[in-house]
Amino acid sequence: MPLKGNAVVGQSGGPTAVINASLAGVIEEALEHSEVLGVYGGVHGVLGMLKEDFIDLGKQDPSVIRGLRSTPSAALGSCRYKVSAEDCRKLVEIFKKYNIRYFFYIGGNDSADTSNKVSKAAKEAGYELAVVAIPKTIDNDLAVTDHSPGYGSVARWVATAVRDAGLDTEAIGVVDNVKIIEVMGRNAGWITAATALARDHADAAPHLIYLPERPFCAEKFLADVKAVYDKLGHCVVTVCEGLKDETGTYVTASSRSIDTDKFGHKQLGGVGEFLCNLVATNLKLKARCDKPGTIQRVSAALASPVDVAEAYEVGRHAVRCAVQGITDKMVTIMRKPGPSYEAEMGTCDLEAVANEEKYVPDEFINEAGNDVTRAFVEYASPLIGGPLEPYARLERIRVKA
Amino acid sequence: MPLKGNAVVGQSGGPTAVINASLAGVIEEALEHSEVLGVYGGVHGVLGMLKEDFIDLGKQDPSVIRGLRSTPSAALGSCRYKVSAEDCRKLVEIFKKYNIRYFFYIGGNDSADTSNKVSKAAKEAGYELAVVAIPKTIDNDLAVTDHSPGYGSVARWVATAVRDAGLDTEAIGVVDNVKIIEVMGRNAGWITAATALARDHADAAPHLIYLPERPFCAEKFLADVKAVYDKLGHCVVTVCEGLKDETGTYVTASSRSIDTDKFGHKQLGGVGEFLCNLVATNLKLKARCDKPGTIQRVSAALASPVDVAEAYEVGRHAVRCAVQGITDKMVTIMRKPGPSYEAEMGTCDLEAVANEEKYVPDEFINEAGNDVTRAFVEYASPLIGGPLEPYARLERIRVKA
Repeated sequence: MPLKGNAVVGQSGGPTAVINASLAGVIEEALEHSEVLGVYGGVHGVLGMLKEDFIDLGKQDPSVIRGLRSTPSAALGSCRYKVSAEDCRKLVEIFKKYNIRYFFYIGGNDSADTSNKVSKAAKEAGYELAVVAIPKTIDNDLAVTDHSPGYGSVARWVATAVRDAGLDTEAIGVVDNVKIIEVMGRNAGWITAATALARDHADAAPHLIYLPERPFCAEKFLADVKAVYDKLGHCVVTVCEGLKDETGTYVTASSRSIDTDKFGHKQLGGVGEFLCNLVATNLKLKARCDKPGTIQRVSAALASPVDVAEAYEVGRHAVRCAVQGITDKMVTIMRKPGPSYEAEMGTCDLEAVANEEKYVPDEFINEAGNDVTRAFVEYASPLIGGPLEPYARLERIRVKA
Repeated sequence: MPLKGNAVVGQSGGPTAVINASLAGVIEEALEHSEVLGVYGGVHGVLGMLKEDFIDLGKQDPSVIRGLRSTPSAALGSCRYKVSAEDCRKLVEIFKKYNIRYFFYIGGNDSADTSNKVSKAAKEAGYELAVVAIPKTIDNDLAVTDHSPGYGSVARWVATAVRDAGLDTEAIGVVDNVKIIEVMGRNAGWITAATALARDHADAAPHLIYLPERPFCAEKFLADVKAVYDKLGHCVVTVCEGLKDETGTYVTASSRSIDTDKFGHKQLGGVGEFLCNLVATNLKLKARCDKPGTIQRVSAALASPVDVAEAYEVGRHAVRCAVQGITDKMVTIMRKPGPSYEAEMGTCDLEAVANEEKYVPDEFINEAGNDVTRAFVEYASPLIGGPLEPYARLERIRVKA
């Protein structure tokens, strides 16, 4: 028989363009179910919940909730916090105090792990609590699900930006010969791979794509760049900030101790400048680096309509599952077989995603390890919600004197 | 009496989101005047003209020319080339050979200088040539004109990106405390100043804005950041890549000799990382840097409609002037007095802009030198073509147990 009680929802990890769409889905669906008495939001995820810092989401103006669907970043505030056993016991006490029977946590694999721990603590305390995690990560590295909400939008953003920056280098490559664009991604190159969706004409950028799934070799990289430059007179490279060498060590990671988070993750970044120096020093070519950083992950203006719709749906589906008594699951997106893109919602065990990472598979990476395959483009294209706006190109009609 | 002959148009300097709109304006207007027999495009500006590398723009499909209005970067290819006296004499000989009587050059102050030199060489050779420069620069540092085509679009881009990245830090500032966003601009802080247009709510980012018009002082900067962080728990800073110290030296400029161009300009960049290190070392706060680089200047998706329309008009106006026998001028945009934004086309002498730089004036910079004034916001707001899309914000309705 279904539980009756309040629901709490939190947002965790890095913000995205669509994590608020998932929040809107949770709120609007929850308000339709009599089992859910009140809908509370934890400010800065479990951090706020531990401080009993809750916002009443059921009492917001409906237009605000609707507006969340097109508002980037995390409206409730986010966090990166590793819960202790003590934290989990405390959370369960607080949930009892507020009659919270539904726990929805929107985040990545660390958040699935948090949800899993909270659920176990509730069971140990004999407190009935429905726990459903809602997938969110630009990194697209969650196991089981075909892809993660947030990825389609960052993919559309980097495809758009790399196409534009590529045309820039095509125009001014006589001066700025080589451009390196540093893309987000810790251990999985999904976002960097999506820069391939920028290509809309022969010899279009990016000309070289480097993922952390393949060890970086400076000699090979320099030979690759030289070959492209010799052919086109310019070269545009996209590279993942999490690039690793043969020993599996990050090529560039911050040495500042303050830059290592609670999960032991080092802040990455700087690989673009590193490659620029390699090019300038060894090839004597002028290289410059673009590093959009967090801008790439929170653009509402360039969000993928498919991603926005799916982010909203995973939020609604989580509530539908929970009120049916389903618990200890994460919502998944399952791609249906067939010529045109279609997906449906599903679920998987929290254990199956907690602390797992899904890397770009071999069939999506080319032999030389400096590009993606046609199979990847077919996988990712539908996720950005249709082709980019077409651009004009002049015909090379020569003039004779 | 009006000249009859062919026209040549070139694009020079850094690409923008709208320099192709100016090209479309030149082509479509020129095709309407019987004085202009053919419209040729110089590939990579004067570099291609010197090699007699011309594209016939009159023979392109009209849909391609229309499409240029919404295609970023420089469709003809650009250059950064300082013409010699010999180059100018050679250009005049080539113009004679191709019966070119109209020279349109789309670019910034270096390009106005080039136009000026080409015109003088034609006069010395006794060759009648109408020379009209068409303003283009994201830097907005051209003298005389109220603003430059390209600026409104980069301004809209940075306003949009900083608003999004600011919401990102507002959400995850508990982990990533400080964000530094490095914005383009050599000696003039116009683009960085435009990040103020991101603000749409109390305490919105950017919280601090540093322009090259004010000498950078590390102690003051650290005190500014600490004050914002102590108040809000996070801080978003926008800074111009051309930031200078008390001695007028760039705080960060590339030491690679290959990074100094024909005009003696050093490639800038790195100030964001530099400030991150200051913050991490001195304030013990986690700081990260976004450096969108060339991506910010060539976004068609976020182009300002006002900028696109004006860029098209300056191209058309240049042709109208030239066929009336006007020469040695650059087209200017003159803002009409009045409550609502209106502008009309004008012209000024090439000498008045050649190699001049217009800096952000004192009345647009606040007393403390870490923000802009209301007067700047009133100047820049109309140029981005209307307010940014509104975002939703949750009401802080607290929950009681």
